[in-house]
Amino acid sequence: MAKRLLCYYSPMSTTTSEHSLSEHAVSERPAPERKEPAYLFTEKQVAEKSEIARRFLETRARLNANVDKANNFLVKRFYNLDHTIYLEGTLPAKTKELMGLVASACLRCDDCISYHAIHAYRLGATRAEQEESLNVALVIGGSIMIPHLRRAYELLEELYG
Amino acid sequence: MAKRLLCYYSPMSTTTSEHSLSEHAVSERPAPERKEPAYLFTEKQVAEKSEIARRFLETRARLNANVDKANNFLVKRFYNLDHTIYLEGTLPAKTKELMGLVASACLRCDDCISYHAIHAYRLGATRAEQEESLNVALVIGGSIMIPHLRRAYELLEELYG
Amino acid sequence: MAKRLLCYYSPMSTTTSEHSLSEHAVSERPAPERKEPAYLFTEKQVAEKSEIARRFLETRARLNANVDKANNFLVKRFYNLDHTIYLEGTLPAKTKELMGLVASACLRCDDCISYHAIHAYRLGATRAEQEESLNVALVIGGSIMIPHLRRAYELLEELYG
Amino acid sequence: MAKRLLCYYSPMSTTTSEHSLSEHAVSERPAPERKEPAYLFTEKQVAEKSEIARRFLETRARLNANVDKANNFLVKRFYNLDHTIYLEGTLPAKTKELMGLVASACLRCDDCISYHAIHAYRLGATRAEQEESLNVALVIGGSIMIPHLRRAYELLEELYG
Amino acid sequence: MAKRLLCYYSPMSTTTSEHSLSEHAVSERPAPERKEPAYLFTEKQVAEKSEIARRFLETRARLNANVDKANNFLVKRFYNLDHTIYLEGTLPAKTKELMGLVASACLRCDDCISYHAIHAYRLGATRAEQEESLNVALVIGGSIMIPHLRRAYELLEELYG
Amino acid sequence: MAKRLLCYYSPMSTTTSEHSLSEHAVSERPAPERKEPAYLFTEKQVAEKSEIARRFLETRARLNANVDKANNFLVKRFYNLDHTIYLEGTLPAKTKELMGLVASACLRCDDCISYHAIHAYRLGATRAEQEESLNVALVIGGSIMIPHLRRAYELLEELYG
Repeated sequence: MAKRLLCYYSPMSTTTSEHSLSEHAVSERPAPERKEPAYLFTEKQVAEKSEIARRFLETRARLNANVDKANNFLVKRFYNLDHTIYLEGTLPAKTKELMGLVASACLRCDDCISYHAIHAYRLGATRAEQEESLNVALVIGGSIMIPHLRRAYELLEELYG
Repeated sequence: MAKRLLCYYSPMSTTTSEHSLSEHAVSERPAPERKEPAYLFTEKQVAEKSEIARRFLETRARLNANVDKANNFLVKRFYNLDHTIYLEGTLPAKTKELMGLVASACLRCDDCISYHAIHAYRLGATRAEQEESLNVALVIGGSIMIPHLRRAYELLEELYG
Repeated sequence: MAKRLLCYYSPMSTTTSEHSLSEHAVSERPAPERKEPAYLFTEKQVAEKSEIARRFLETRARLNANVDKANNFLVKRFYNLDHTIYLEGTLPAKTKELMGLVASACLRCDDCISYHAIHAYRLGATRAEQEESLNVALVIGGSIMIPHLRRAYELLEELYG
Repeated sequence: MAKRLLCYYSPMSTTTSEHSLSEHAVSERPAPERKEPAYLFTEKQVAEKSEIARRFLETRARLNANVDKANNFLVKRFYNLDHTIYLEGTLPAKTKELMGLVASACLRCDDCISYHAIHAYRLGATRAEQEESLNVALVIGGSIMIPHLRRAYELLEELYG
Repeated sequence: MAKRLLCYYSPMSTTTSEHSLSEHAVSERPAPERKEPAYLFTEKQVAEKSEIARRFLETRARLNANVDKANNFLVKRFYNLDHTIYLEGTLPAKTKELMGLVASACLRCDDCISYHAIHAYRLGATRAEQEESLNVALVIGGSIMIPHLRRAYELLEELYG
Repeated sequence: MAKRLLCYYSPMSTTTSEHSLSEHAVSERPAPERKEPAYLFTEKQVAEKSEIARRFLETRARLNANVDKANNFLVKRFYNLDHTIYLEGTLPAKTKELMGLVASACLRCDDCISYHAIHAYRLGATRAEQEESLNVALVIGGSIMIPHLRRAYELLEELYG
């Protein structure tokens, strides 16, 4: 599905704008094989396991339905890009979800932390891997992220406890 | 050109992923008419007017050529999105470049400030408009952005002085 | 009213401090004509239209009353500066509220997003203008601001839906 | 207690890694005398005075118990470092809690603001000192931190009102 | 001088805007006594001691002269506010410069770090006090600020070495 | 070596402070086996391959020598923690360097990007893995990090070109 997306995706139109790269080289390197990751658990299973996850996923679904309804062209393209980057590719999807967790913790976004922790869990990440990822973020991001760490551990406890 | 891009752009593939929105509504609202803005000045003219701009544009072009050569699929898509957002659309391109200036100043990125100040200039923004945009950023972002403000004023002086 | 403020505002006293600029030039350029914008809707009307806006405005008013009571000199001066920057001036008040929206979204502050979205609405910004502003922020600020985007769209839905 | 910790703390092991400094000089300068600050109020007394503080301290204690249970080695070391830095030392503990308040406000973390405001209060900081610290943060961090300022004043009102 | 400024400063005009606080209470609490701090060293003396400081101060003076020339009303008011906050007041000027150092390091602004480290030095801060302030910032802000710490230590070495 | 450090590391002293966790559970879970990663290339080899890397490593070594000389107790402990987190452990060292790269790019720190890109290279990361990591950061962090991306690609070109 995602692969098909890539095939259909139009070559970046030639443009004189400074914002975009020249496009001549597009054909040089084929887009890497990307595919949907194989989740070990459905969102529903996660929601049954963790009340925190359930509330997060439900709120997210409700709000996304509203964004969806607005049907904003750019938002859809951005969401699509966001979807693509976490597919199986040069790096395993699980590794990229854990990277997303590190970045989310450093940038101190609770929703993003929940999102990536849940997806890493669905892809088989162990609790130790999640904690180690959060540790990388803690050292890089400092004590200012400790309140987020505390909330993340509450989620981990529900998912793995 | 950009419009053609929109036509060719594949409808977001249906996907089960949480990253993307459902796509059913895509046809509801047509993508807004977008077109390349009409610049009053070429980059070359800007570079002749301002030594700071010249150095920035040259370094940027040299480094972008290198990124271009790498031909990374995701980077190209992101650059393309970045290009699209600043086109004439619901809001005038000039307004969006000034918005980019405000955001760049708040986020404290010198290169981004130079980029948007130069583009706003090319689109006919007055010095007073640039200063007022920087003032919005100064109040929102605080004194931590003053070093960037100082450097921005040096560029404005060369462009408008 | 605001104009009167400017008239009464004392010329910055001469000072030897490194923090302030020299003042000799103060008279060179008159302070730009600034005036209160003409709102299309009162806060009360906004609160009647949107439950999210109502809760935000009420909490804000209650907390501001408390700050007001403290009567801190510096806070009052800062609030005053903050007030001044969004007045009609070189740039229209509506444009500056949308700039405030972009910056608030990039800096990921829900309260600030609500504040500027409400004010832009009160000044006649269309939903498409608000969405386009959020798009500028999305591209500049990245997926880390998507949770804020989702909440912003919920507010937009109530205001314009 | 903290002092004993320092004595027991192993000299940084010699290592070839780029991450750590060479260790030869460790003995040159003795670790500064550090000791637990003398609090004027217990957490319990603070919680009785302020409902906001009570809720913050209880949530924090509950979540920390969970982190504690996880017994993550790196987290414990980081918490320990975090504990050490706020001890009485070259700078008074109260000053450092106020510094923590400034940084927390600039970095816009409500929990961290509450934490440091409460500790500064427990160490005898006056309300005027807390407000002045928040003012430093306001000027440095800009209007984006005003929502946090408002909430901080609500806490200050309960603690000192 | 600064005190005179406060006297001349117009009471915030009554305004209906949401940006400003109501003004009724202005007379309740007199503005705190503020005065210029007594510097132990002139900027010239600092520049003679440290090549890094000399270059920073010269560049800053040159760029500020340019900002000064632009004579932007809002910038002048912000600079003035920024000047006022670091005066002797409820907290000693030296403490506030060290707070500025902590915030600058957490927000990772080299120029701001240099500025506050130089001013703390001019006000008699010891090297140990500067290092301890940087330590607070290091724990709060994490390893991402280590490159700035390294550069700060180079300046400290020149100032105190 | 690092393992020895862990053995010598004192159990966190019991403390009444709110900053630290209670320590009772320390013995429950043994500290994970951690060891120095096996680098494929020495820093010297990297420096010979890339002029950008050489300048970065030399400046870093020179400035670190200065920090080292200061022999600040807390800095040494933080550096040590920073060293420990990137050792081989629950997650491979290479993965954690790539995580460091993602976080550094999102937090927009050129020196940190160079550091982690160089270390990932020394641990055998391919160029495609580095690019994919930067892509995760680009989508999360947005266009504001493009200037850093450009400079990162220049380094990658020298290392892998």
